[in-house]
Amino acid sequence: MKPYREDNEVIIESLKGLKLPERIRIFDTTLRDGEQTPGVSLTPEEKVEIAVNLNNLGVDVIEAGFPISSRGEKEAIKRITSLNMDAEICALARTVKKDIDVAIDCDVDTIHTFIATSPLHRKYKLKMNKDEILRKAVEAVEYIKDHGITVEFSAEDATRTEISYLIEVYKVVEEAGADRINVPDTVGVMIPKAMEYLIRRIKEEVSLPISVHCHNDFGLAVANSLGAVEGGAQQVHCTVNGIGERAGNAALEEVVLSLKMIYGIETGIKTEKLTEVSQLISKLTGIKLQVNKAIVGENAFAHESGIHAHGVLTHALTYEPIPPEIVGQRRKIILGKHTGSHAIECKLRELGFKVGENITEEQFKEVIRRIKDIGDKGKRITDDDVMAIVEDITKRTVKEERIVNLEQIAVMTGNKVIPTASVILTIDGEKYITSEVGVGPVDAAIKAIQSIIGEKIKLKEYHINAITGGTDALAEVTIKLEGYGKEVTVKAANEDIVRASVEAVIEGINRIMVK
Amino acid sequence: MKPYREDNEVIIESLKGLKLPERIRIFDTTLRDGEQTPGVSLTPEEKVEIAVNLNNLGVDVIEAGFPISSRGEKEAIKRITSLNMDAEICALARTVKKDIDVAIDCDVDTIHTFIATSPLHRKYKLKMNKDEILRKAVEAVEYIKDHGITVEFSAEDATRTEISYLIEVYKVVEEAGADRINVPDTVGVMIPKAMEYLIRRIKEEVSLPISVHCHNDFGLAVANSLGAVEGGAQQVHCTVNGIGERAGNAALEEVVLSLKMIYGIETGIKTEKLTEVSQLISKLTGIKLQVNKAIVGENAFAHESGIHAHGVLTHALTYEPIPPEIVGQRRKIILGKHTGSHAIECKLRELGFKVGENITEEQFKEVIRRIKDIGDKGKRITDDDVMAIVEDITKRTVKEERIVNLEQIAVMTGNKVIPTASVILTIDGEKYITSEVGVGPVDAAIKAIQSIIGEKIKLKEYHINAITGGTDALAEVTIKLEGYGKEVTVKAANEDIVRASVEAVIEGINRIMVK
Repeated sequence: MKPYREDNEVIIESLKGLKLPERIRIFDTTLRDGEQTPGVSLTPEEKVEIAVNLNNLGVDVIEAGFPISSRGEKEAIKRITSLNMDAEICALARTVKKDIDVAIDCDVDTIHTFIATSPLHRKYKLKMNKDEILRKAVEAVEYIKDHGITVEFSAEDATRTEISYLIEVYKVVEEAGADRINVPDTVGVMIPKAMEYLIRRIKEEVSLPISVHCHNDFGLAVANSLGAVEGGAQQVHCTVNGIGERAGNAALEEVVLSLKMIYGIETGIKTEKLTEVSQLISKLTGIKLQVNKAIVGENAFAHESGIHAHGVLTHALTYEPIPPEIVGQRRKIILGKHTGSHAIECKLRELGFKVGENITEEQFKEVIRRIKDIGDKGKRITDDDVMAIVEDITKRTVKEERIVNLEQIAVMTGNKVIPTASVILTIDGEKYITSEVGVGPVDAAIKAIQSIIGEKIKLKEYHINAITGGTDALAEVTIKLEGYGKEVTVKAANEDIVRASVEAVIEGINRIMVK
Repeated sequence: MKPYREDNEVIIESLKGLKLPERIRIFDTTLRDGEQTPGVSLTPEEKVEIAVNLNNLGVDVIEAGFPISSRGEKEAIKRITSLNMDAEICALARTVKKDIDVAIDCDVDTIHTFIATSPLHRKYKLKMNKDEILRKAVEAVEYIKDHGITVEFSAEDATRTEISYLIEVYKVVEEAGADRINVPDTVGVMIPKAMEYLIRRIKEEVSLPISVHCHNDFGLAVANSLGAVEGGAQQVHCTVNGIGERAGNAALEEVVLSLKMIYGIETGIKTEKLTEVSQLISKLTGIKLQVNKAIVGENAFAHESGIHAHGVLTHALTYEPIPPEIVGQRRKIILGKHTGSHAIECKLRELGFKVGENITEEQFKEVIRRIKDIGDKGKRITDDDVMAIVEDITKRTVKEERIVNLEQIAVMTGNKVIPTASVILTIDGEKYITSEVGVGPVDAAIKAIQSIIGEKIKLKEYHINAITGGTDALAEVTIKLEGYGKEVTVKAANEDIVRASVEAVIEGINRIMVK
């Protein structure tokens, strides 16, 4: 697929005359800004795992952390640099000797050193005047260069600094030997036009490569980064999933895809790995994505409404800006009260029902009506609901075809009891009995079932929705099983969390083994 | 606080010469695009509740839904129009008579009618040529105007339509009597510059008020809406929390705050209500916000890193673009491995410890070191952790003061077993034994403890965080107990959900009974 810049009249016309680069460097700061997300803490092992994945993803620079902040942080950075990856490894340091010394000690390729320049920061935080700041900046850059290390220099809160003073700061660090300058929009107050303007102004006076670092306080971090590229920036700081302090940073996946698919500007990123890396970061940081997160969210390529689902089923690009495979996603059609008949027909086919064959036109209309009724009641519609409706209407019951049945289960736990489960299953009418222990009652129960079923069916995912209310509230369990070349997702709900888990797993095993 | 446009040199310079309006109309489409989010279904009662809140928030238009899509949808819209709110109430309709008739029947102020105009949609979805589309558009507008209803007309997929044809479409609907035109970026492929360019081109030829409707597929919906305002748009479509199909729509709170605090452009929105409304929408739709969601996210005004926390505690605007109160939020300082001494000192004071009074300088340094160690292990630091550390260091131990101790617990459940728990507690050294049944193992265990403790301490809240990973993942339980005029909240984590729940409750009982 061509980028919109070669194919869309509005984009072509609006960018006419603008000189754009062929490639932008991606400076990933997930391990620094991303880890500064309040509540996020990564172990050194997790930081190394993330660094390896970022390197494989193809980022140009990995800012591995802020080594002065803790002992674990320093250890993690040292371990990352010892891996000799392709990506340039960078550490953050204030323009302070002790910060820089710790960073040097980590054996990094680059030190990203910063000092604030805005009037607010000069007065309230640093309590320094303009000249003192210039001196500190120059000293730091020279000290780092004396150690033969690449320097990227940031004027913190650049976008709230007087433009003339900001340019003066960048000019003195250029003379002091800095390799790149970075322009941080520290509290995210820029708009794309302003960012483009500022970068252009700086570029007129400073010849070093320019990088930008945008925060998302007004939701504009990605657009501001693109504005900076229009103004002449050659490198963009970003974090996977846009995580970071407060509203976070420019989201790597959004910056990269906008550059690639709208502007036609390449980065080194292997975009098909983006969804996988996004999920890894979400898992390790504990920061869940909003379902409608652009590019990598669960719904980014999901369609429910009749018009959209119909359009997408006819020609995907009618309601999709890019094919989901480009970012390692897949298209989903979801049923609900807005769903039209095309999407429902499509879902029935997935479940093995074809209108005119094993379900009549009349029955099909009744299925649509009942699905919309469920939607009107404010409920989500799962595959199970659809199956139940179709079975009810067509009077076929799938239950009879069940291969695996749970005859009996008993589970115990306590503070002086090893959690233990005993299970009786019948498989194709034959009886199997076993018991297993686990770390808790659910774990023991599922292990017991698994030990009868064997290795051919595996539990790939286990998820319990948050439970709120009383101890007698409904527990909703979602599991994913894989086996015999199939993958099924099953939900079950029960007031007893053990029984909900067991029901889901038994149902999943049956779905895999049926037919 | 002044908007950045009056205070920030970069914003001032970059917007020089641009004529901006004083006020922008907010067209809220949370109940239409927002509800089309896959998996979201609202009952008519919920739709009415949302409409009332949007009206109180101060939106200019409420797009209440797409009445043709289901019976419940039509009913909800009728109930909303019957409330005679200040906001203009609008319904969506294709340029099809049956859609429009249902909308008319709902007694709305405005009908938002649309037909696609892009080559892709003409060919694959509508299977119509340019002239047929023009005819359908005109017919629909005239039909609606014959009923004395306001018309907002959308050329669906406008941003992928040939510019000359798009302008032709808008000109014919203007002649047909439309009141406003809307420019949807249906699959979110625009950039701010392109949106500004397109709106300016349309404005040269059409004199109706122009509205825009931006999707967020590349994360640019808010920026594109602002670009459109720079180009001359007078109205912006948005949804609370940015929910909507795929990656969602322009987030209302981000558009409104950018306009107000950066551009100095007013809307009718009472911004201090934004966080509350955002939380309501999140609750009713079930769409959780990413913690770093701009403006209304849990972390939007939270600070962990030493430098940021110190800065904010000295002068808030060093690391905050706007005061949190403007949007109904509050500032949070969170402890972690990046936290510096200022923030920890601040937290200790909250918990009743003052350096130099009941904790020495040396002990304080040890607290800092231990907090960072916990952070390095990848753990979050709760108030309980801080208390435990301080108590340990200052040699005050609460443990010895425990009144209630769990000696033994055993719980069983199964499909042929009534969930049953037996418990031995000692209270002030005296032994109590009992057993209880419940709907599940947790319920039975807590009921057994409760039956010993009696009615004076009540479980007010019980919450389990979502569990993801395997069946052996850690379960995190939060409970709230009330008794003897106190209320305590306790967290506990264990791989066994029963034991986590029991530990939390026993700990809570002790906290209530101590002193």
